[in-house]
Amino acid sequence: MTDAPDPLVIFTPSGKRGRFPAGTPILTAARQLGVDLESVCGGRGVCSKCQVAPTFGEFAKHGVTSSEGAVGPMNAVEQRYDRVRGLIDGRRLGCQATVQGDLVVDVPADSQLHKQVVRKRAEARTITMDPATRLQCVEVEQPDMHAPTGDLERLKTALALPDLQVPPAFLSHLQPLLRKGNWQVTAAIFEDHTGAPPRLLDLWPGYRETPLYGLAVDLGSTTIAAHLTRLDTGAVVAASGVMNPQIRFGEDLMSRVSYAMMNPGGAAEMRDAVRTALADLAAALVAEADLDARDVVEATIVCNPVMHHILLGIDPVELGQAPFALAVSDALNLAAGDLDLGTINPAGRVYILPCIAGHVGADAAAVALSESPHRAEPLTLIADVGTNAEIILGNKSKLLACSSPTGPAFEGAQIAHGQRAAPGAIERVEINPETKAPRIRIIGNDHWSDAEEFGTDTAVSGICGSGIIEAVAEMRMAGVMDASGLIGSAEQTGSDRCVPDGRTYKFLLWAGGETGPDIYVTQGDIRAIQLAKSALYAGARLLMDELGVDHVDRVVLAGAFGAHISPKHAMVLGMIPDAPLDQVSSAGNAAGTGARIALCNKAMRAEVEALVRQIQKVETAIEPRFQEHFVAANALPHASDPFPHLRAVTPLPDVQFNAAAGQGRRRRRRDG
Amino acid sequence: MTDAPDPLVIFTPSGKRGRFPAGTPILTAARQLGVDLESVCGGRGVCSKCQVAPTFGEFAKHGVTSSEGAVGPMNAVEQRYDRVRGLIDGRRLGCQATVQGDLVVDVPADSQLHKQVVRKRAEARTITMDPATRLQCVEVEQPDMHAPTGDLERLKTALALPDLQVPPAFLSHLQPLLRKGNWQVTAAIFEDHTGAPPRLLDLWPGYRETPLYGLAVDLGSTTIAAHLTRLDTGAVVAASGVMNPQIRFGEDLMSRVSYAMMNPGGAAEMRDAVRTALADLAAALVAEADLDARDVVEATIVCNPVMHHILLGIDPVELGQAPFALAVSDALNLAAGDLDLGTINPAGRVYILPCIAGHVGADAAAVALSESPHRAEPLTLIADVGTNAEIILGNKSKLLACSSPTGPAFEGAQIAHGQRAAPGAIERVEINPETKAPRIRIIGNDHWSDAEEFGTDTAVSGICGSGIIEAVAEMRMAGVMDASGLIGSAEQTGSDRCVPDGRTYKFLLWAGGETGPDIYVTQGDIRAIQLAKSALYAGARLLMDELGVDHVDRVVLAGAFGAHISPKHAMVLGMIPDAPLDQVSSAGNAAGTGARIALCNKAMRAEVEALVRQIQKVETAIEPRFQEHFVAANALPHASDPFPHLRAVTPLPDVQFNAAAGQGRRRRRRDG
Repeated sequence: MTDAPDPLVIFTPSGKRGRFPAGTPILTAARQLGVDLESVCGGRGVCSKCQVAPTFGEFAKHGVTSSEGAVGPMNAVEQRYDRVRGLIDGRRLGCQATVQGDLVVDVPADSQLHKQVVRKRAEARTITMDPATRLQCVEVEQPDMHAPTGDLERLKTALALPDLQVPPAFLSHLQPLLRKGNWQVTAAIFEDHTGAPPRLLDLWPGYRETPLYGLAVDLGSTTIAAHLTRLDTGAVVAASGVMNPQIRFGEDLMSRVSYAMMNPGGAAEMRDAVRTALADLAAALVAEADLDARDVVEATIVCNPVMHHILLGIDPVELGQAPFALAVSDALNLAAGDLDLGTINPAGRVYILPCIAGHVGADAAAVALSESPHRAEPLTLIADVGTNAEIILGNKSKLLACSSPTGPAFEGAQIAHGQRAAPGAIERVEINPETKAPRIRIIGNDHWSDAEEFGTDTAVSGICGSGIIEAVAEMRMAGVMDASGLIGSAEQTGSDRCVPDGRTYKFLLWAGGETGPDIYVTQGDIRAIQLAKSALYAGARLLMDELGVDHVDRVVLAGAFGAHISPKHAMVLGMIPDAPLDQVSSAGNAAGTGARIALCNKAMRAEVEALVRQIQKVETAIEPRFQEHFVAANALPHASDPFPHLRAVTPLPDVQFNAAAGQGRRRRRRDG
Repeated sequence: MTDAPDPLVIFTPSGKRGRFPAGTPILTAARQLGVDLESVCGGRGVCSKCQVAPTFGEFAKHGVTSSEGAVGPMNAVEQRYDRVRGLIDGRRLGCQATVQGDLVVDVPADSQLHKQVVRKRAEARTITMDPATRLQCVEVEQPDMHAPTGDLERLKTALALPDLQVPPAFLSHLQPLLRKGNWQVTAAIFEDHTGAPPRLLDLWPGYRETPLYGLAVDLGSTTIAAHLTRLDTGAVVAASGVMNPQIRFGEDLMSRVSYAMMNPGGAAEMRDAVRTALADLAAALVAEADLDARDVVEATIVCNPVMHHILLGIDPVELGQAPFALAVSDALNLAAGDLDLGTINPAGRVYILPCIAGHVGADAAAVALSESPHRAEPLTLIADVGTNAEIILGNKSKLLACSSPTGPAFEGAQIAHGQRAAPGAIERVEINPETKAPRIRIIGNDHWSDAEEFGTDTAVSGICGSGIIEAVAEMRMAGVMDASGLIGSAEQTGSDRCVPDGRTYKFLLWAGGETGPDIYVTQGDIRAIQLAKSALYAGARLLMDELGVDHVDRVVLAGAFGAHISPKHAMVLGMIPDAPLDQVSSAGNAAGTGARIALCNKAMRAEVEALVRQIQKVETAIEPRFQEHFVAANALPHASDPFPHLRAVTPLPDVQFNAAAGQGRRRRRRDG
């Protein structure tokens, strides 16, 4: 008997295996083998996180026969748990069930510490749960006059965390709390990627059943969006967005910088406004999910550099002038109180992702983290389009980034009938190339305007960002506008929808009749879109020059706006470089996703920090070639770049309305 | 030439030596050899801290001839410094002067980074300056659009501190400050013994000339004393003490614990009182020394466990009952704001020394650090006498500590004519063994009462702690009181100063006449002193038992009270174990000195923490032998211990007044 080898234990799905003396608890075996099996209560049969499923039979693959006697019978602790709380059939508590013979043990997905959150998009990476904050339940030694250490020191010993950092304000609660829990407590321990000592965030008497939560915040110039997320499973329990109240200090970032410059105390005023909004948003989400604010122990924040500085209470004046010096660029690890975020746990921690440069912020870093071009072979161009576009180009060998001042046209501003994306706004457009007759779709109505179901009394209120892009692109494709962006006259185009508008023409997109206004696309609208798209394209081309390439393999459009853009129409406009249409995709709110990734997995914080250091920044403002690219990109799609993929799928009529515009402008024709 | 060895440089007084290429700055050579030479400005000829004195001639001891040509001539930077600020004759700036040949260089004491503070008492150790906070002046790289790191990141690079921790509130000041200093700044960097990353405490534009300061606080039950200390030289620039305002919640510690137990919010009320007093005291010292509060960047605090907990906002209720559990026992590293210490630098750091046990606090730890019995061979007994006595016994092999409830008699309380140590209080007593006539000295008068210069109209107001000890001891030596503590009648003693007082007698120490009250020592006074000294002696004996010894080599009396006690009289009373009289000394305010040591030298923080872990705690309250020792110690000096050293210098009359007391008490005589 003494010469027989110890029983062999094999864990699935990992395949990890090892021999352990009979009587070893399965959890102990799993820990020694590094098997990913959760346990909060320290093996006391309380938390039930370590549930496993012993499996029996012959496993040829593993060369082992697992018999029913190979796992010990339920002891009193396990029996009690099964009686009171109930174990799923075939499940055992890993901390109580013992190895008695050769055994195959399956670790179900819900017992894995590092659960995976599968994201919806096919190309998106999964998030592996490994948050910075964990719960740990321990039994603390009672005080002993003969070894008179403090209660806190014995708590640290029980947690096996001798260098645990404890907020001083917490010391006053410790003694009553330990006694209330009869020396059993559950601690929330924060230990991030920085190598800083672990921190006690909170403590509850006894064993705490319920999970902890974190808040992933995308702090935009216009809106603040937040996802309240479980830190054990990654599930989003509440999500909401509010307007950024700083809008009253200026719609775009530079006007907010000006506000800070012109008004003493202006930066502080804007700081207070955004902090209040953030705290209110957190409070609303906590209320919606019916949580205790104490249960929200972490937040991650992404934002552009100006919002970043204002949030931190830094006057953004340096960001308004060359050399656009950031006060701080690295990621920040803060306390909730540092941002007056009083509506989550007072000891809660906030992680702000790093900024890439004075114009390329933590939001762009979050997009890079979410889309991970640095992990892929194909050369990927990512554009996060807003009032500024942040553009990232590269692959696993090299990454570049820049920011380009697109202006607000893509958001529907500066457009005669432009409006925010809201019910009634035109979001899709098609123009018949023969009849030049448009049909539209509006937000809040699932049907095209030429379908009966669209309704005859539907009010159309304006054009949103994606609508104006489709409208302009369709006008180009239908030949009512030429490559230089000029709208032709009724005579030139053969459509009486082209009507004079001062010295230029405008195109009637929707006749409101009795239900609302007539909606036109004006020559001014076209110019605004041309400026915006030229800036975006010029930024992308600048990065391509830096990388020495003349095409990209993939294009990803990020941001709320990017989610609604039709790739073909964007390419007809020449917003983005030519690429196979099926390689142009939307990443949705990639910045917000980056914030969630950093919330759920602390190693991803280290990754985004390394990524930002690796990204080479290109400053469009001082690069002379940017101006050249900008001018050449004025044409639709472009004055010189050939756009072969686009032309393969969409013919573009070769029309010119130059002379007709009567402005004496030089005739200009290269392609299209 | 190429084969000639590089010049040899020898630094005195360290004797460190090495060869360096001609042209090497002396500071560079010093740093490479690990010579203790200060520099704040990073070798830019600004701070002048690195001044050295090249010395010339033949140095047979070092085997080198140092010629005048061995140090290079003054360069423009050094000439400018000499012209504008002036160099002492023979001094050179180590960062500018270069090695040109074999050279002996003296590092004057004021250029040493780790200056030594010589303490006044001969047996006291010197304090080597090595504070946790240092000043560092650097030139920060200006922002560069092509390498867009933040200003903070470039500051960290300039300081060569990549992991520098920066208070978030500081970020808003950084950019204007760097620009104001034209990219030169002086940083206060805090880096303590814990291995925690360095912390930025403050930043000044340009080069900061003036030193930083720290506050060493001895937070006693009755008084709060603080020393405002230069962190470069260790010099005390202002010192003050105030009454602890908590006195209104109870004179002694246990009545304050009771106050917290009986009054909801009582602990918070006491916390606020002591924090306000501490802040006010700091503000007063800063004003007295005419400093900017920002210049005070550190504080160290020593106190007993009850004060410790109240200061931290911890309800001290657990300290009032067995097992006397401390909430926290380890040393604490806090921010000034954690203690509402708003009158020093807002980013300032506070170090609270560790507690030894529920009854033996950080003040006792500070005494141990200051007296350092663990560094010596002789077996040393240290008693810090107050309302409680903290007693430490040991040597380099082993250390023990306990606390003993002496009560307030030694502080003049519970004594019929007792008073605090103040002008007019009797502090010295001698009684003529023949005539039984006393003579006294009072605080505020340099003469004995039998000298003409004492004056005939001097008011004597009472007896202070040291006075009552001398009085009782002298009564024992003069035979007006017997070994059991009974005062004899006039008949028994032959002195009409012994007058009836109810069923006992009292002794007239001072006839006030027209100038003040008659001052008596009553039988009740003797009993109070006996209780107090028995407790102290029993505690010491308990430690001696634990250590298995029957005598000690040295006795140190610490505390304000200890400073004024006559060793012989203390031994006649049997307060302390018998020892050679010349081995009984006073350490003054050793707790306060311990606080100063921890302020001036961060390694001493590690030392006191190790020391506390090493000290074995003995709990007097639950040790049955304590009662035995207490009873045996009631006699003066002792019922059974022989006190050979004492008897060799002072005969003690063998009198007994038992029967005369008329109380039927059992006759009791062993010795004396």
